[in-house]
Amino acid sequence: MEFKEWFKEKVSIVDEYLGQIIEAKENPQKIIYQAVNYSLLSGGKRLRPVLFLGAYELFSDDLKKALPFACIMEMIHTYSLIHDDLPAMDNDDYRRGKLSNHKKFGEARAILAGDALLNKAFETGLDAAINFKGMNAIKALKLIADSSGTEGMIGGQVIDIDGENKISSIEDLKYMYSLKTGAIIKSSVTAGATLAGATENEIKLLENYAEKVGIAFQIMDDILDVTSTQEKLGKLIGSDAANNKTTYLTFKSIDEARKDVEKFTEEAIKSLSLFGNRAIYLIELAKYLTSREN
Amino acid sequence: MEFKEWFKEKVSIVDEYLGQIIEAKENPQKIIYQAVNYSLLSGGKRLRPVLFLGAYELFSDDLKKALPFACIMEMIHTYSLIHDDLPAMDNDDYRRGKLSNHKKFGEARAILAGDALLNKAFETGLDAAINFKGMNAIKALKLIADSSGTEGMIGGQVIDIDGENKISSIEDLKYMYSLKTGAIIKSSVTAGATLAGATENEIKLLENYAEKVGIAFQIMDDILDVTSTQEKLGKLIGSDAANNKTTYLTFKSIDEARKDVEKFTEEAIKSLSLFGNRAIYLIELAKYLTSREN
Repeated sequence: MEFKEWFKEKVSIVDEYLGQIIEAKENPQKIIYQAVNYSLLSGGKRLRPVLFLGAYELFSDDLKKALPFACIMEMIHTYSLIHDDLPAMDNDDYRRGKLSNHKKFGEARAILAGDALLNKAFETGLDAAINFKGMNAIKALKLIADSSGTEGMIGGQVIDIDGENKISSIEDLKYMYSLKTGAIIKSSVTAGATLAGATENEIKLLENYAEKVGIAFQIMDDILDVTSTQEKLGKLIGSDAANNKTTYLTFKSIDEARKDVEKFTEEAIKSLSLFGNRAIYLIELAKYLTSREN
Repeated sequence: MEFKEWFKEKVSIVDEYLGQIIEAKENPQKIIYQAVNYSLLSGGKRLRPVLFLGAYELFSDDLKKALPFACIMEMIHTYSLIHDDLPAMDNDDYRRGKLSNHKKFGEARAILAGDALLNKAFETGLDAAINFKGMNAIKALKLIADSSGTEGMIGGQVIDIDGENKISSIEDLKYMYSLKTGAIIKSSVTAGATLAGATENEIKLLENYAEKVGIAFQIMDDILDVTSTQEKLGKLIGSDAANNKTTYLTFKSIDEARKDVEKFTEEAIKSLSLFGNRAIYLIELAKYLTSREN
């Protein structure tokens, strides 16, 4: 199967699963289902679930078991975007080409929609763990939980909102990125492999792959914020500069940044050499992320 | 052991455990540990963890195993208070006798501190489940997760912020309460019993107890908001009226409300009759909640 076809197939099963996670019941709190689904089903790239499934597939064919866990990654990612866009945080009016959640539903509901999605991620994971049985599911879920907490995504967010004061070197920035976006990208891969029963050494190699992919991905984000168009990006361009954000381009030129993206991508691919041709889709995925336009 | 001594002992082990959940590491995101601990360690009543341990103790003496799960209840409760107090929500400046989290740390950090606490609750639970092994831990955790989501606490919050428009009868109000505060109180009891290996029938009886305790507790809250003092309550009194909140006293007089508290408390205690004298602390706990001043 061609990479593009593989990717499309994965996105398709992820989208289908996500579409039925929040059942829109007729009850007094139904607005929360609408607010959650508004952001969850707005056509994200589904990169994290696809990474999860790609890592899982190296060791197991039983994708049906992996799907709930893969989708958790998107739920956590989406909740973080909803809260990130809030006026008290980045104050972004657009996301994925639409009004951000709080512009559409109001701040209070957007806060609760984010809370609901994080909560639903664990409801989904625990439910799947009960069906799955065995400890691999719990271990995978624990990896995910750690990556979205204060030693992961939230830790990165906290540094990011204090940006200018806290980030004075490219090393500071890389630390922040390793938490804010890196941790979840990493756990997508390591939790996928863990769920499928990979060995510690295999997980270690994949972890290294994911770390390099994560930083390359984030640098690309910083480049695209400057070079892309609003139409392609689905949100206002130049928002980092408008928010006085410290980014990779605070320390490096666009050309240097592009070279670093290539370097990290090559290193990511090298980490997979042990897996040979089995890792073809993860290799192509790393390349795809480097060449993306949004 | 006297009830008061039993209660004090439980609060003490809960406080000790909560005190070491968030390790204050020296790292760039350390402000988030401070923000979380500011609210988590501000001397709450610890009612939910004590309910958890009380239900657990009916079936098992191994309290050490139960403690992490009991503390999750307080973490989820505290996160909900932090988000509830935000300007976009109830806009409360005081909580437990201190400035609310966002008044102390700013809105962005308060949002993240709440997120961090919810996340940390699941980190803690999954970690304990890995140590605990066996499915009871996962099932208990699933009960908790369900109770804090859109079919539980968050669902109740969503209705509450829309109060006047959504709540036009005492039945509407009771539905909202059963989600907003009732669901977590219920899962404290049912998850405690589940973790300890109670039978389905035993859990059913305890669920009934917790439902009655939950509504009695919430009516008391509404009464205290009118009759207590700021000193005793640790937050501004009359805040429900100031926020145009629909409460139990919208539909009933204070005297009627007090009678309902007594009625629900009696019903709660009746549900425990099968357990005989073993349930003495849960019985006393229900009475204590009725006579509290804050």
